[in-house]
Amino acid sequence: MRGSLSSVFDSELYSSLFTQPEMKQIWSDENLINCWLTFETTIARVQAELNIIPTQAADDIAATCRTLKIDWPRLAADTRSVGMAIKPLVDQITDAGTPLVKKYLHWGCTTQDLLDTALAMRVKQSLLLLRGQLVTLGENLRTMALAHKATVMVARTNSMDASATTWGLQVSSYLGEVARHLQRLDSLYPTAITGMFGGAVGNLSSVGMHGMETRRNLMDALGLSTPVGMMNASQDNVVQVVQFFALVHGTLCRMANDVENMGRASIAEVREGEGGGGSSTMPHKTNPRASNMIQTLSRMGWMYASGSANLLDQQDVRAASMRVLNWTVLPEAALALSASLDRACRLVTHLVVDKQRMRDNFSASKNFIMSESVSMRLADKIGRDEGYHIMKALLKDADGSKDLQQLALGCERIRETLTEEEILAACDPSSYLGCNDALIDETVAFFDSVEKTLKA
Amino acid sequence: MRGSLSSVFDSELYSSLFTQPEMKQIWSDENLINCWLTFETTIARVQAELNIIPTQAADDIAATCRTLKIDWPRLAADTRSVGMAIKPLVDQITDAGTPLVKKYLHWGCTTQDLLDTALAMRVKQSLLLLRGQLVTLGENLRTMALAHKATVMVARTNSMDASATTWGLQVSSYLGEVARHLQRLDSLYPTAITGMFGGAVGNLSSVGMHGMETRRNLMDALGLSTPVGMMNASQDNVVQVVQFFALVHGTLCRMANDVENMGRASIAEVREGEGGGGSSTMPHKTNPRASNMIQTLSRMGWMYASGSANLLDQQDVRAASMRVLNWTVLPEAALALSASLDRACRLVTHLVVDKQRMRDNFSASKNFIMSESVSMRLADKIGRDEGYHIMKALLKDADGSKDLQQLALGCERIRETLTEEEILAACDPSSYLGCNDALIDETVAFFDSVEKTLKA
Amino acid sequence: MRGSLSSVFDSELYSSLFTQPEMKQIWSDENLINCWLTFETTIARVQAELNIIPTQAADDIAATCRTLKIDWPRLAADTRSVGMAIKPLVDQITDAGTPLVKKYLHWGCTTQDLLDTALAMRVKQSLLLLRGQLVTLGENLRTMALAHKATVMVARTNSMDASATTWGLQVSSYLGEVARHLQRLDSLYPTAITGMFGGAVGNLSSVGMHGMETRRNLMDALGLSTPVGMMNASQDNVVQVVQFFALVHGTLCRMANDVENMGRASIAEVREGEGGGGSSTMPHKTNPRASNMIQTLSRMGWMYASGSANLLDQQDVRAASMRVLNWTVLPEAALALSASLDRACRLVTHLVVDKQRMRDNFSASKNFIMSESVSMRLADKIGRDEGYHIMKALLKDADGSKDLQQLALGCERIRETLTEEEILAACDPSSYLGCNDALIDETVAFFDSVEKTLKA
Amino acid sequence: MRGSLSSVFDSELYSSLFTQPEMKQIWSDENLINCWLTFETTIARVQAELNIIPTQAADDIAATCRTLKIDWPRLAADTRSVGMAIKPLVDQITDAGTPLVKKYLHWGCTTQDLLDTALAMRVKQSLLLLRGQLVTLGENLRTMALAHKATVMVARTNSMDASATTWGLQVSSYLGEVARHLQRLDSLYPTAITGMFGGAVGNLSSVGMHGMETRRNLMDALGLSTPVGMMNASQDNVVQVVQFFALVHGTLCRMANDVENMGRASIAEVREGEGGGGSSTMPHKTNPRASNMIQTLSRMGWMYASGSANLLDQQDVRAASMRVLNWTVLPEAALALSASLDRACRLVTHLVVDKQRMRDNFSASKNFIMSESVSMRLADKIGRDEGYHIMKALLKDADGSKDLQQLALGCERIRETLTEEEILAACDPSSYLGCNDALIDETVAFFDSVEKTLKA
Repeated sequence: MRGSLSSVFDSELYSSLFTQPEMKQIWSDENLINCWLTFETTIARVQAELNIIPTQAADDIAATCRTLKIDWPRLAADTRSVGMAIKPLVDQITDAGTPLVKKYLHWGCTTQDLLDTALAMRVKQSLLLLRGQLVTLGENLRTMALAHKATVMVARTNSMDASATTWGLQVSSYLGEVARHLQRLDSLYPTAITGMFGGAVGNLSSVGMHGMETRRNLMDALGLSTPVGMMNASQDNVVQVVQFFALVHGTLCRMANDVENMGRASIAEVREGEGGGGSSTMPHKTNPRASNMIQTLSRMGWMYASGSANLLDQQDVRAASMRVLNWTVLPEAALALSASLDRACRLVTHLVVDKQRMRDNFSASKNFIMSESVSMRLADKIGRDEGYHIMKALLKDADGSKDLQQLALGCERIRETLTEEEILAACDPSSYLGCNDALIDETVAFFDSVEKTLKA
Repeated sequence: MRGSLSSVFDSELYSSLFTQPEMKQIWSDENLINCWLTFETTIARVQAELNIIPTQAADDIAATCRTLKIDWPRLAADTRSVGMAIKPLVDQITDAGTPLVKKYLHWGCTTQDLLDTALAMRVKQSLLLLRGQLVTLGENLRTMALAHKATVMVARTNSMDASATTWGLQVSSYLGEVARHLQRLDSLYPTAITGMFGGAVGNLSSVGMHGMETRRNLMDALGLSTPVGMMNASQDNVVQVVQFFALVHGTLCRMANDVENMGRASIAEVREGEGGGGSSTMPHKTNPRASNMIQTLSRMGWMYASGSANLLDQQDVRAASMRVLNWTVLPEAALALSASLDRACRLVTHLVVDKQRMRDNFSASKNFIMSESVSMRLADKIGRDEGYHIMKALLKDADGSKDLQQLALGCERIRETLTEEEILAACDPSSYLGCNDALIDETVAFFDSVEKTLKA
Repeated sequence: MRGSLSSVFDSELYSSLFTQPEMKQIWSDENLINCWLTFETTIARVQAELNIIPTQAADDIAATCRTLKIDWPRLAADTRSVGMAIKPLVDQITDAGTPLVKKYLHWGCTTQDLLDTALAMRVKQSLLLLRGQLVTLGENLRTMALAHKATVMVARTNSMDASATTWGLQVSSYLGEVARHLQRLDSLYPTAITGMFGGAVGNLSSVGMHGMETRRNLMDALGLSTPVGMMNASQDNVVQVVQFFALVHGTLCRMANDVENMGRASIAEVREGEGGGGSSTMPHKTNPRASNMIQTLSRMGWMYASGSANLLDQQDVRAASMRVLNWTVLPEAALALSASLDRACRLVTHLVVDKQRMRDNFSASKNFIMSESVSMRLADKIGRDEGYHIMKALLKDADGSKDLQQLALGCERIRETLTEEEILAACDPSSYLGCNDALIDETVAFFDSVEKTLKA
Repeated sequence: MRGSLSSVFDSELYSSLFTQPEMKQIWSDENLINCWLTFETTIARVQAELNIIPTQAADDIAATCRTLKIDWPRLAADTRSVGMAIKPLVDQITDAGTPLVKKYLHWGCTTQDLLDTALAMRVKQSLLLLRGQLVTLGENLRTMALAHKATVMVARTNSMDASATTWGLQVSSYLGEVARHLQRLDSLYPTAITGMFGGAVGNLSSVGMHGMETRRNLMDALGLSTPVGMMNASQDNVVQVVQFFALVHGTLCRMANDVENMGRASIAEVREGEGGGGSSTMPHKTNPRASNMIQTLSRMGWMYASGSANLLDQQDVRAASMRVLNWTVLPEAALALSASLDRACRLVTHLVVDKQRMRDNFSASKNFIMSESVSMRLADKIGRDEGYHIMKALLKDADGSKDLQQLALGCERIRETLTEEEILAACDPSSYLGCNDALIDETVAFFDSVEKTLKA
């Protein structure tokens, strides 16, 4: 099989760049089949407890599932022929089982019950893993935000140097998003892990009396949420998960964008420290591979979110067409996000921050970016509108030979309004950070308050 | 201007098909400017209360904003030149105001503060309107689900006739989604209506001391949520709204799909009753215009959700590029959803349901779709596997001349296992509805429990 | 590795449903590495012919590449560390080679040259395979269109029965799209197979004199198109391929939609004949698996097209971030389309068409759908507007007890205008097929004219 | 109506940023209705020439259409009720016309004929306008590329300083894409402007004999391409147009990305010169509004392309649901692209290029980016592999105090291989531009060869 794989998630070359090992296990064929076997074992046990099937049948089913040797080639061939893997798997269990297994396996179940419940089981595993990754990322960001609370740097808006800020505040803005993502995850978790048990057409008609009780007991035993009403055609809970992933990618992509931009040679405020990224031809060069991979993975995540909406295009009691999309969209979406979170954690942990360079970069604009600071000091005395226009005029006439302090000190109108001391203070970035510390602190407190919420 | 408009939302021909009047007002230029004026008035009042600016200045600003006659051509021209409308508007207020207005208007604010806060104000208005529409739709569905609890119809899966269900259960499945959407709306509401106030680079440096207090008081006064930390580059809350809209479209589209399919001449179980849809050439024909428009609007909604992810592709303290997307994606997304909800409500209210036809359509499969019912009765006695194979063989050999009862009654193997009475009962759709009533009831109860939740 | 795979393209369970064997080989790791080795061998030969490197070096490089035993674990590990696989592969060749190989391998090349050229090589292989599949599909459709030229059926518009048409004409409409796709493929082929050779920053500076000649000779030797100018940041040719795939999916999806709709029990005009699709619980039921898979694959294709636009979001001489998307989007897009074409061919070949049922289904509307036919006969005598309104009124008052002939014959206004013979003729579907044959014939001729065009 | 508009395309505030005046006229209600009137007039004339209707009827129809005073409120109300605007318009013409008009207007036509043909007419107008805009942009780029053939600048790959290139070569890479877009436009033009005339169900049954001739004559008279076969359900030609737009956006977005990046304060190699972009609070700052708007518009264009694929999800002879998407996707897509092309032309024309700064920016990497140049000179003598490793080691040990020349001159191993003169030459950017001029020249020649192709 060496060399025969074709998707980046399974490719021997590329898999490690696009997947995270635990997540890969969650979405493997093996775990898929294990989830199905768990379903069959559990529904049998639940039905035995309700006296729907004999206890011995449930025991036999459990034993057969536990010891089943999957005939992979036959399973693949039958799946190809049937179009779904459930009947082929049920056939293999039946063939391997006692007469009681033959009689009571898959009792009252339909293919969709297994497909959707196994999806919910893997979504649950994925969300718990991702929550852990989000918390780890958040903790790393929290540490960095606090460590750089006073690391003054150029604040840029619309790609232009604008005023002063701190690296800690910028990092705290990532942290705030991570905290909101944790809130979102906890909010969607209960519905995202809703299983499915409805029989052929969702009304539990094939299950006999005890339908509602069977469903509830099954979901409790599987650690899933019990559906409310008939949800066979509903894919909203599934799509919401993929949409949520897209939001998380946004945060990671934004971090990557910043690292990439701030790492350009002329700015050089941060650089990736993890290693790798060497050029095959240019000896001096190290590429921002982590940032770039995170940017790529974010586009993948957004693409999956865009494709996932099609899952909602359902009809009748249910339709296979769009539903099958979740066989590919969910796994790839989960793998891509998990890989990106993993990469982002390493990016943050290894990031090299050059405080001196951050400070030096104010000179790129001849310190002109402190003009709002001066303008606001003027405004305090003579109003916003006039202050703004004095500075606008001053800078408009500048020929580039003087920096802001020099210009301001040399401006009669300003000297009439501000003292030299006030002017110099206004030109100092660290004097104009507003509520920097309070903003960082409230973000950290917010993260701390959501970090531990979910009871899985 | 007659005839000059070009988008379906404003076109004189098409606007009424793509918008709902109240939502159109919310996203109009007029309301946009009113939100901005409200912002300027409110921030001035808040700052006056904190003794940051004189009370008289706040009064003057309020008076000027209240009486301002917008010079539209100038506003349009300046916006075109500057690229954003805030400075042009501030200029017009300044020009119309007293010296105190000139001095204290827009104090410590930046363009983004107004853009994002006005967006939050309109998102709030939109969500409240949409919530009302969702509740109305839910109430209509609730009524229909209960009315058709016993309206037996063919259950179809993968477009094939499968077994028996009720129209009430199918309708309740839409209701369940509506209830989940209400939960989602209530869950995202607090963050979706988060305003923005941060000054030029988000750290409130231009606001002076009292920055945090000013921000909180402003948001309280505007009825918005106060941001936590520095959120200038964060668009996750905005994107989440558009993603949520996509989920709601899913429900509407599914209803439309069902009405369209069930309305085909050969099925004819329901038809749109609202009128319209006449063909320009075929006198006998009435097209399912409501369903088709809802399907169209859903694709628009999914398209906006797919485009909205780009808003997350941010950098630095903030970037204008992607952010400007919310000028077009949000309004169109809100208009399309509101129009679709409106249409869906009318569709449900006017829907003509043909119960007799629903019952007659079991004959399309010669009642074969009751085979699972027979199969399960057999299974009770001889096991699932054997029951399945007896029926499979029986149907495989059928030549189409006999219906299921006849075949079953004529099958020796079945007659050995079931009485004639049991066979006839198994072939009767209404005997095989499982937990139909309980499923409808729990869905209705779920809807009732979320209908009134939001405290706006 | 059994059971460890996670994407539907490589999964042992699902791969056969989502891939076509030859296409899977094209996008395998093995073929990828072979393309890279071919590149290194070919560039060396070309450079030797231009006396840029010694002939012996080219011979040694060819020999080393031909016999190279890839150390897969090392290749995977190095790729993970570097972020790209080229340098790791070059290192393995270098290690295995003579001193001349060490000295002259990869001469003047950069990673992108290999990545993009190998992509072009595999795009070429893919397009040739897909062209063959399109031609096969077209030939099958051609046969069916001609065979069913006179198979009268209900024409449906907006899901409503509208008038009469033939199955042959409907099938010819698929054929027309296939023919246009062949035209499109031939039109984009020359640019789609454009290779890349530019050195580190695209200006061939690392190649020395003979840069342009080297590039041209290399592309000629590889059977690829030579770039015009500097194309390092340009991904338009790549994106266009994925967009083209989306158009082809449209045709396949439309065929699948029709088969699914026409296969509903109440319509039953066609059904899939390939087998498979059995239900795990309902013995009577066969699901339209081919149609449903084709619908699923089309959504995947459209999703890839939507994601592919991000490849265009480039900067500088080139940017790795978005470019890496083509590692996943291209393979999956090619695999999904190829699998869908394969499935569509089988669907068409095995499709069971029920001519009698097609004819019987006119009764679903009591033959009312022939009303335009009557209306047009009236129009010939008394004008379109009056003819339309007579029929509209007639049908409006119908109570469902009579069919169209009966109503028309009983209508005084019509009897004044048309003879009984004319009325009966107007009500006969086969009398109202317009230019059916000419339309089919010109479509077949169009397909025939494009079938053989491409010279690969 | 002042202030009531809600889409950015029609908003009084925003329209000028999102539309181009001629394109706005093309997609206006007024032009839409004019296209429909032209259709009715032309089909009547064609039918009169074929003696299908009286010549006087055609004359009367032409006269009525020419002088028709649209009752807009009635048209809007009827459109709302019917769901399509054609029947309402036909009713107004009929009401205003002679008895011959009432009798022969819209003869054998159906709503789709008008909708799709008017779409083709406006697509034709749009493509011709866009072609002109592309040519203008290309000419501006051509001028700039030639003017900056020798303007040496840092070549960046993966956002890192990499080696030397010229601004002219980078600009020529945009030009090459523009030339390919012209080729694409010319290639898709004939099918993109295919009209529709098929009657109710596409087989021309309502047109009587002469159906094929009528169709051909109509399309000739309208300057459109005649369909081949029955194309009612086919939207591939339409989707292809929107996909093409997405490719053009790619070029514009890439230019905007480069201008934005190169305009950052620390790089400052180019800046937008058109004016506008002032900050409402920071006097020193001018935002790259043109680049940012182009980036926004590109995301809109990609979003439309992603949404357009849904148009392909057709069924039966045709389906209104997805088709109605083209009422909104096409206009917005055309408007957004035209606005972006307009903005890009102005951006290029006014761009301020700072050659000195481009040269100075080599110092950001201490000239290390010339290391490949040195490495290749070494390779000429001692092989690629050894040359690469010498340089890699040299740079690895550098402490940042010396630039590349100093390091190279101080390296014993290099001094053994290269003369001082060779080292200095290797470190000079202008000595290492490869085939710069030839690449620019062939791109210009390519553009020149396609600039004039289309015969409209």
